[in-house]
Amino acid sequence: MAESERVMVDFRTEPARYKHWKLSVDGRVATLAMDVREDGGLRPGYELKLNSYDLGVDIELYDTIQRLRFEHPEVGAVILTSGKERVFCAGANIRMLSQSSHGWKVNFCKFTNETRNAIEDATAHSRQFYLCAINGPCAGGGYELALASDYIIMADDGSTTVALPEVPLLAVLPGTGGLTRLVDKRRVRRDRADFFSTLEEGIKGQRAVEWRLVDQVVPRSQLDETVRRRAAELAARSDRPAGARGIPLEPLARTIEGERVAYSQVTCQLDRERGIAEITVSAPTGPPPADPPGIRAVGCAFWPLAVARELDDLILHLRTNEDAVGLWVFRTAGRGDLLEAYDRALLDHASDWLVREIRLYLKRTLKRLDVSSRSIFALIEPGSCFTGTLLELALAADRSYMLYGAREGDAKPPASVRLTGMNFGPYPMVNGLTRLESRFLAEPGRVDDLKGRVGKELEAAAAAEAGLVTFTPDDIDWDDEVRIGMEERVAFSPDALTGMEASLRFGGPETLESKIFSRLSAWQNWIFQRPNAVGPKGALKVYGTGERSDFDRGRV
Amino acid sequence: MAESERVMVDFRTEPARYKHWKLSVDGRVATLAMDVREDGGLRPGYELKLNSYDLGVDIELYDTIQRLRFEHPEVGAVILTSGKERVFCAGANIRMLSQSSHGWKVNFCKFTNETRNAIEDATAHSRQFYLCAINGPCAGGGYELALASDYIIMADDGSTTVALPEVPLLAVLPGTGGLTRLVDKRRVRRDRADFFSTLEEGIKGQRAVEWRLVDQVVPRSQLDETVRRRAAELAARSDRPAGARGIPLEPLARTIEGERVAYSQVTCQLDRERGIAEITVSAPTGPPPADPPGIRAVGCAFWPLAVARELDDLILHLRTNEDAVGLWVFRTAGRGDLLEAYDRALLDHASDWLVREIRLYLKRTLKRLDVSSRSIFALIEPGSCFTGTLLELALAADRSYMLYGAREGDAKPPASVRLTGMNFGPYPMVNGLTRLESRFLAEPGRVDDLKGRVGKELEAAAAAEAGLVTFTPDDIDWDDEVRIGMEERVAFSPDALTGMEASLRFGGPETLESKIFSRLSAWQNWIFQRPNAVGPKGALKVYGTGERSDFDRGRV
Repeated sequence: MAESERVMVDFRTEPARYKHWKLSVDGRVATLAMDVREDGGLRPGYELKLNSYDLGVDIELYDTIQRLRFEHPEVGAVILTSGKERVFCAGANIRMLSQSSHGWKVNFCKFTNETRNAIEDATAHSRQFYLCAINGPCAGGGYELALASDYIIMADDGSTTVALPEVPLLAVLPGTGGLTRLVDKRRVRRDRADFFSTLEEGIKGQRAVEWRLVDQVVPRSQLDETVRRRAAELAARSDRPAGARGIPLEPLARTIEGERVAYSQVTCQLDRERGIAEITVSAPTGPPPADPPGIRAVGCAFWPLAVARELDDLILHLRTNEDAVGLWVFRTAGRGDLLEAYDRALLDHASDWLVREIRLYLKRTLKRLDVSSRSIFALIEPGSCFTGTLLELALAADRSYMLYGAREGDAKPPASVRLTGMNFGPYPMVNGLTRLESRFLAEPGRVDDLKGRVGKELEAAAAAEAGLVTFTPDDIDWDDEVRIGMEERVAFSPDALTGMEASLRFGGPETLESKIFSRLSAWQNWIFQRPNAVGPKGALKVYGTGERSDFDRGRV
Repeated sequence: MAESERVMVDFRTEPARYKHWKLSVDGRVATLAMDVREDGGLRPGYELKLNSYDLGVDIELYDTIQRLRFEHPEVGAVILTSGKERVFCAGANIRMLSQSSHGWKVNFCKFTNETRNAIEDATAHSRQFYLCAINGPCAGGGYELALASDYIIMADDGSTTVALPEVPLLAVLPGTGGLTRLVDKRRVRRDRADFFSTLEEGIKGQRAVEWRLVDQVVPRSQLDETVRRRAAELAARSDRPAGARGIPLEPLARTIEGERVAYSQVTCQLDRERGIAEITVSAPTGPPPADPPGIRAVGCAFWPLAVARELDDLILHLRTNEDAVGLWVFRTAGRGDLLEAYDRALLDHASDWLVREIRLYLKRTLKRLDVSSRSIFALIEPGSCFTGTLLELALAADRSYMLYGAREGDAKPPASVRLTGMNFGPYPMVNGLTRLESRFLAEPGRVDDLKGRVGKELEAAAAAEAGLVTFTPDDIDWDDEVRIGMEERVAFSPDALTGMEASLRFGGPETLESKIFSRLSAWQNWIFQRPNAVGPKGALKVYGTGERSDFDRGRV
């Protein structure tokens, strides 16, 4: 990690603190304009010219997308555009990339990928349609942002183009989903995608439409009106409630003291020496509100929303600021019956706009956990609450340990796990399967069988028999077995574990998202290690210096 | 490239020259025993102890698999086992890996992956069922070889185990399909796969069956008989003709003179300075034999088989021995009507065992082309023969240029391309789609429409309209456009091109094979660049030296 990267990154922000984005809402349509402040970089050493971005810009984008979902139920369409006169967006800032460590680049790309996936998730599931108004040159990560929206309108003015110049200019990939979205989302013919991705200057006008790179081009003078009209059409198709009022996403309370990170429902005890984070999630302590108005009344304090926000922030915090902590160990605590009641509320009120948003947020947070390059263990002990939504943490884990029977001298009853309806659909992984489906690829019928056990307390023997947990040591073996498992895990090479976990977690089918995280990101990570990109004469290093890059011509 | 890697590798071999494998055929069942000669390494500097393997061992394996298909139509089942007393196979030789360059490792893994895929292809499509008799400890690449077979029987003798110890021992992945086959082929539960893949000592006995790692365990004393019985059962299910005689795969005639590589139907002119290989494939010069007996009579000289063998060898040769040649430019020459007649023979006699093998071999060769990390262009000019089977070369290309109209002063008629039935099914890519389906992801209906144009000569305008070619410059523009396209291509970073091509070539669905080449191999390539594996203190480097590896604990 470079020195400047050691300053802690905080993913919490709010509109009053935005430097780079301008949000305006006009009835059913919001406009989100990118207007990056050149001197507003998260780190010293680069200027964010031409609407180029760094992690700080993307943190604000992520925050806005979240707020649009929760604070603006009335918004059915979002226009993504540039607030600058002569440029849409030049992509990720190259100086920033070139001065960043390998780990920083990889982590930056993961977050930006997740944010673009969240845009698509908003369109598909929150029914908040993103459309993009390209009102100036749009290159690299700029075009990848456009690709994440559902409909792209480009000004036909002779100078506005879309381009993916990464390969010819920088010797890296358009790694924020660009290549994958070209062929798998927009289904650009592969030979055209090939040509386009080697073209520094990009493509403009009608050819961009013919090649499916954008959906529509219009004369500059008609851009605003065309976009507004299209946005109104899309908004009219949305089922979001025009008359509803949003809930404010209050600042997230978090304390960091030494090796302890704490929120209201989530705590994390770090052991930096051993490289382990022990994370505990608490179940709700009382029953849920009776109905959607009651849920809206508690707002951010509604337990499922609070947990989604806190876990989300913790994952981002640990990934970015605690890279040497390679093993995350999840525990839960609390009453399964209360959690079950909350899950029932999420199921019963699924059609309520806010409940829908909360379910989607939990889904995205669990997905973020799956694609984190950290080992994940779950410990299921007396007093824990691996029920329904929280059982997903154990199912997301690379392995789980569940104590068989009670602890000597402990009055608590033996540990149990409990399925709810939330384990059977609302939380798909990036491969499109639920965690149960991913687990039982060999015997898909088991998932159906398990539906018959919803609500039952399954102690260790039953949970093991049902295939829900990995190991069930008893009180005599527990300490040694868990300790050795953890010690061994953190002794392995972090890189090998990352590759192994990425390969084993996502069996079965692939989706656009899974292809972005596996194929595209894996290749980009490889390229981010190659001297042709990052060596002293690598293209990323010499870009803008006037020097020419010098490539090793060998193909591997 | 290390100095010892500069000696040319020849992929052509024959049983009389085998050092490492023993093939015996007993009626419908063949036994293929791995018996690696310790001092028989392809390169100096390592000993192939414990049935560990290097590229030379795998070249022989590949040759045997091919011969079993063509020379042994009577064989319906193949028993893969070890010829050693106390070990099945210890996997790829670690000293060999540790002394190899990055490019060598990556290329070695690609070939071994293709060979294991060929084993599965033989089981699935040649109806030559591979089963594996594990008669001693079986680790890493040894178990990955077992995973490629259709049925695994293991001795239950207290010492025989299966293991994937790469992550704990070497800080690399089981990258020859191991991780992917665990969860995607054998559908081992992901948490068990995780535990297993971190276990140096492996798993034996009944637990290996329960965890789906093997299909059956039997006492050592019953291993041979159980395997023979099972093999006979599998062979009985095969539709391969028990009474047929195979055709010998005669030594492949090839000349290499300076920058020219030539076979009977395929020639390759290298320009090492520019990094370009110009490859020309000739169409047949006479009509095909009238029927399957006639095809068997010409044997290896049958044009489609000759082309499959020659292209296969050329691809392997270029990938391994000409790594600085990054652009392969395909041309064809000859008469489309004759090629069409050959394609008709391949279609009409599809149920003949030999014709089936030839079609499958062409399929595998074209797949090998798709997954080669080289840029591929196709040039379609007057006199060329991009018809049917050879049109697949243009469809496999990253882009194609087709001359519009005739050349000034050239009597030849304008170039045309021609579809045959062979473009609509027999040659799927690793993603399971034909090249036409992969091309028209946006408009699947176009593939059906094109069926109506089978046999028609499509000149440039029609071919472009049909979406079959990328660019159609006329005689005035041709030279500049093609030259600039080629010059630009070879000027880009080879690594960026590899990642780009791997991302754009395979739109749409994923399969076991495509996941191995994209996800697993991409992660492995990344790990093969990481200091934790290959640095001076990396696990792969210090293995066997008594030194401890020293890991950077940062997760990226």
